[in-house]
Amino acid sequence: MSQIDPNAVKTYLLDLQDRICAELSEEDGGGRFVEDSWTREEGGGGRSRVLTQGAVIEKGGVNFSHVFGTQLPPSATAARPELAGRSFQAMGVSLVIHPHNPYVPTSHANVRFFIAEKPGEAPVWWFGGGFDLTPYYGFEEDVRHWHQTAHDACAPFGDDIYPRFKQWCDDYFFLKHRNEPRGVGGLFFDDLNDAGFDDSFALMRSIGDAYIQAYRPIMARRKDQPFSERERQFQLYRRGRYVEFNLVYDRGTLFGLQSGGRTESILMSLPPLVRWDYDWQPEPGTPEAALYDQFLIHREWI
Amino acid sequence: MSQIDPNAVKTYLLDLQDRICAELSEEDGGGRFVEDSWTREEGGGGRSRVLTQGAVIEKGGVNFSHVFGTQLPPSATAARPELAGRSFQAMGVSLVIHPHNPYVPTSHANVRFFIAEKPGEAPVWWFGGGFDLTPYYGFEEDVRHWHQTAHDACAPFGDDIYPRFKQWCDDYFFLKHRNEPRGVGGLFFDDLNDAGFDDSFALMRSIGDAYIQAYRPIMARRKDQPFSERERQFQLYRRGRYVEFNLVYDRGTLFGLQSGGRTESILMSLPPLVRWDYDWQPEPGTPEAALYDQFLIHREWI
Repeated sequence: MSQIDPNAVKTYLLDLQDRICAELSEEDGGGRFVEDSWTREEGGGGRSRVLTQGAVIEKGGVNFSHVFGTQLPPSATAARPELAGRSFQAMGVSLVIHPHNPYVPTSHANVRFFIAEKPGEAPVWWFGGGFDLTPYYGFEEDVRHWHQTAHDACAPFGDDIYPRFKQWCDDYFFLKHRNEPRGVGGLFFDDLNDAGFDDSFALMRSIGDAYIQAYRPIMARRKDQPFSERERQFQLYRRGRYVEFNLVYDRGTLFGLQSGGRTESILMSLPPLVRWDYDWQPEPGTPEAALYDQFLIHREWI
Repeated sequence: MSQIDPNAVKTYLLDLQDRICAELSEEDGGGRFVEDSWTREEGGGGRSRVLTQGAVIEKGGVNFSHVFGTQLPPSATAARPELAGRSFQAMGVSLVIHPHNPYVPTSHANVRFFIAEKPGEAPVWWFGGGFDLTPYYGFEEDVRHWHQTAHDACAPFGDDIYPRFKQWCDDYFFLKHRNEPRGVGGLFFDDLNDAGFDDSFALMRSIGDAYIQAYRPIMARRKDQPFSERERQFQLYRRGRYVEFNLVYDRGTLFGLQSGGRTESILMSLPPLVRWDYDWQPEPGTPEAALYDQFLIHREWI
């Protein structure tokens, strides 16, 4: 059994935040991340970085946080009642990028480490994370590249990892009330600890490192594609689904809000501008309908 | 004990929907409600009416629904485990009005009747409802009129009703993660049955009837007040709080989504256009700051 090393995880996460911000900012070509450091009364704090009104990114947040407390909130113990009453540390990097151009998809990534402790007992710990893509207009080559990168990040850890985490992502990022996936998926994992600390940490790092390799080429390829008001309005409409998912279902959002996390950092994931239209439906045969028919379905991409 | 009469409630609710739509449409002066009737596979249906891009109302929905099923969803039995497994009927009128002009507040009203049955046992039933106001710019005379109308609707039923339902409204429409009320409140009640069916129904009718008397004069007074892009942007920003409340906390919304209600009718309450700005704060001394300092606080208005 390898030694649990929360400090090594923290060092990795801070560096990952730096590297992702540097690459996104470079690809944006105009915007810069502005940093806010914050502390939390109950323990811990974070380093939020937000880029608004960049050349490509309309609003993007890359947040590091490390919070601890004497008791896990209900959202964390609902599925694991044995953890109730344990003290905990949670650390992670979480990001959401909302581009201006409707041809550039929204992306989300998160890697996290949890440790729950009780005097006289072995700590309970696990890693979680993943990344997923939410296009407004579908391009097969983009989605294949996204999933291939996800696949390659998992491959050194076993052939079963990608299919399992891909399925988990499809299951997790699903709006039940719409009977609709949030996007085209990617990877999602949680409760990762059975391979021991070193291997679990290595897999989490591999996935954390892969996000920018998965996203940046798509940003680069689509950012200068001309669009009109029609595509923009469809993007604003579809962003509503993002809000619905994050506020109704997302465990990270609910955990953050319930555990007294920093609201502005947690809700940094919400799009800058959003519309809701009553009972809107795409016209058959349009690119908007193609998003629903060909992309917002569970599909094997590689 | 007076006889329970669900049909009388239904007749009242359908008529209330008609009367409210007629008055709102008249005050709008340009917009018309478009009706969608829908049925629900599990039982029941509804009559949704939506007015979009009116002269005053940017998006307004006045929805009647009557749903029934063999088992209450978890959101309804969490606080009343004795109801688990009972068949139920829920009927109500629910409305949200989002005006264009930031000087006209958003308003919400809802009246509802629940009945849960089990063979061989007495039915369990109750009324619920209320109305609350969400201004973007505060006007004391508007808020006083709103609360005075609320007070007068409750007065015939006892002096304790208004203060109790007013407090309940303040407690209910509160965003814990922002430590902020949704608006300036009004009335909220639930589980109303101790006065018997006839009196409970009469109180619910009095509150249902009062909504348009409370709202229409405010619409009339503010709808032509000139505004600029600054007020509009603040309105879009504040609408974000409305979305956060409805998707994170609102029991009606969660009940609807969990019980397989019609998503488009439930989410009709969401504003047409919304913005989220990272860590935005109003400048001290501005009308925007006055909303927070003088209106988004718990206050006695009459």
